[in-house]
Amino acid sequence: MAKIRDTILQIEPYVPGRSTKEIAEEYHLKESEIVKLGSNENPLGPSPKAVKAVKRETKNMHRYPESGLDDLKKAIADYSGTSPNQIIVGGDGADEIIDLLGKTFMETGTEFIVPIPSYMYYEYTLRPYGARPAYAKWDMEKNTVDTKSVIESINDKTRLIFLCTPNNPTGGLIPKDDIIKILESTSALVVVDEAYFEFARVSNIELLEDYENLLILRTFSKAMGLAGMRIGYGISNPRIIDYMHRVKPVFSLTRLSHVAALATLSDKDYIKRSVEFSIKSREYLYSRLLQMDKIRVLRSYANYLLVDIRETGMNAGKLTDELLKRGVIVRDCTSFKGLDEYWIRVSVGTMKENDKFIEALGDIIE
Amino acid sequence: MAKIRDTILQIEPYVPGRSTKEIAEEYHLKESEIVKLGSNENPLGPSPKAVKAVKRETKNMHRYPESGLDDLKKAIADYSGTSPNQIIVGGDGADEIIDLLGKTFMETGTEFIVPIPSYMYYEYTLRPYGARPAYAKWDMEKNTVDTKSVIESINDKTRLIFLCTPNNPTGGLIPKDDIIKILESTSALVVVDEAYFEFARVSNIELLEDYENLLILRTFSKAMGLAGMRIGYGISNPRIIDYMHRVKPVFSLTRLSHVAALATLSDKDYIKRSVEFSIKSREYLYSRLLQMDKIRVLRSYANYLLVDIRETGMNAGKLTDELLKRGVIVRDCTSFKGLDEYWIRVSVGTMKENDKFIEALGDIIE
Repeated sequence: MAKIRDTILQIEPYVPGRSTKEIAEEYHLKESEIVKLGSNENPLGPSPKAVKAVKRETKNMHRYPESGLDDLKKAIADYSGTSPNQIIVGGDGADEIIDLLGKTFMETGTEFIVPIPSYMYYEYTLRPYGARPAYAKWDMEKNTVDTKSVIESINDKTRLIFLCTPNNPTGGLIPKDDIIKILESTSALVVVDEAYFEFARVSNIELLEDYENLLILRTFSKAMGLAGMRIGYGISNPRIIDYMHRVKPVFSLTRLSHVAALATLSDKDYIKRSVEFSIKSREYLYSRLLQMDKIRVLRSYANYLLVDIRETGMNAGKLTDELLKRGVIVRDCTSFKGLDEYWIRVSVGTMKENDKFIEALGDIIE
Repeated sequence: MAKIRDTILQIEPYVPGRSTKEIAEEYHLKESEIVKLGSNENPLGPSPKAVKAVKRETKNMHRYPESGLDDLKKAIADYSGTSPNQIIVGGDGADEIIDLLGKTFMETGTEFIVPIPSYMYYEYTLRPYGARPAYAKWDMEKNTVDTKSVIESINDKTRLIFLCTPNNPTGGLIPKDDIIKILESTSALVVVDEAYFEFARVSNIELLEDYENLLILRTFSKAMGLAGMRIGYGISNPRIIDYMHRVKPVFSLTRLSHVAALATLSDKDYIKRSVEFSIKSREYLYSRLLQMDKIRVLRSYANYLLVDIRETGMNAGKLTDELLKRGVIVRDCTSFKGLDEYWIRVSVGTMKENDKFIEALGDIIE
């Protein structure tokens, strides 16, 4: 048998997520009736301009994508107030950028810091590089990072520090002053994950001018409504971006994703509507959840809400199963390190979807 | 400055390929008039069924892709005469599978064997894992692998052996007996790259029954006409496939690529036409090139031809530049290790494109 690396032998087997079709079959539901509030997708759907651009480009599906992506880097630079040579585009969403960070910075014996609970994919992606996670704390009471715990976790093996703001799954923000404190405590690369920044109307882009150990991570999967097209980007100083390009897959962004991203960035009206609607939907859902007994909801600046359900007497496995029976998918957060089994995360939906979720939840817990 | 891995510091800077738009501008050509015979794409374009399926799916671009891809694995298993649990699907074409081979098998101090000249992306992808290439020989006279040189390159550091058949860029085949000899000489994983197998009408799939150190690599970029959608797959024994899934990016195949792949596999008529046309086009191009003085063309079983141009008095840089002036893109093979500066690779085109290439070439060298 071919020799598999020891690091890989220790990784847990892969369990694929169930498709909507499988869920529909198991719970005897119509696929079209299922309300999907589990993945923080955009309730408005994609930009109509993106749909049009993609349909037009289908005739070229047999042609390789472009590798330089100069026009897209230019458009992202305009959107973010940076320069094209500060930008690297990923063809598997921001997840590809995380993988490139692994290739560029991580090897056996190195460490990365994550204040937990946070996005679990950092760990999933970096462990195969032989890197170890060092867990710092997310302060669940204040719903922000415990800066001291991050700084105390830094040692000479630290290569990357992940700061997700708004944080997935808690929705809380990290104040700029805390990011600065962390940037100034280390020469390791601080990765500020702004996947959801549009919904908070706050960014840390301008810190790039003063700190060369900063990389901002962003995605087209949320406010841009293109989760299925797998487009993400990293912004940092040109030297780091150049090294990351040396290990980047050359053609990973599909031709259709390329034109979809360009068309969406040009659709200012869609972006505005998309952000405004998700914020409105979040505030509505928050106010409805606040009114429910046995439910505690955290203030969120993203397009989802984290909900503490321990008072219901059910754990998240049981509650999400009950919601599925009623046709609503939310995220059971038990697998997030740093959370116990009594949390669910619900994404903002259309108003109709929000009401269907609230109704189903009320039906279960009252 | 954040600490970049030593391995990465030694990798050459990345040079993105020029887009057709840039080429058009530099050579004062209309983009639509440029004949692209540089990337072994499908001259027929994508399957009409794939185009239709993709257009229909655009409304769901805001939804994450499915991660399990059960229906696609089933369709690939049917197409290849294997089982779904033997299959892993890559969302960046076969290039993603090569990267997963890196993650699963390679680390600092390990080696992989490539008989050169062959596909350069193996090396580009595996070097960042700290792995070193060991070059075996491709016999240019017989246009097949030098089996002895491969077997002599095997040592206790060898983890992967790449055998590309038909070989890119030479077009020659590796006889099954030679593959068996190599499989039986080692416990390292032998990766048989069948990206172009449809055009040779020969596969090594059945060897999977007898050899557990074999992985077959394939793509939707060639006979399936979907290079821009980045779909590839690996076929091996379920144990190796399971380990590779543990490190696979979960959502790397876009929703639109997923439906495009399914629709193309269901379009038997397209696949048949696509293969038949490329073979016919190759034989036509071969016969035309045979007739030209100062040109030596190698027998090919793929959808491209490797051409020795040293008798023209020009090197490949000069000749490809002259072809570009006349609106024809072919591949300058100087960057392929194992070839000198006197080789070009030309992909099969439509008959009109073939004639335009032949005419331009005649114009330059006569």
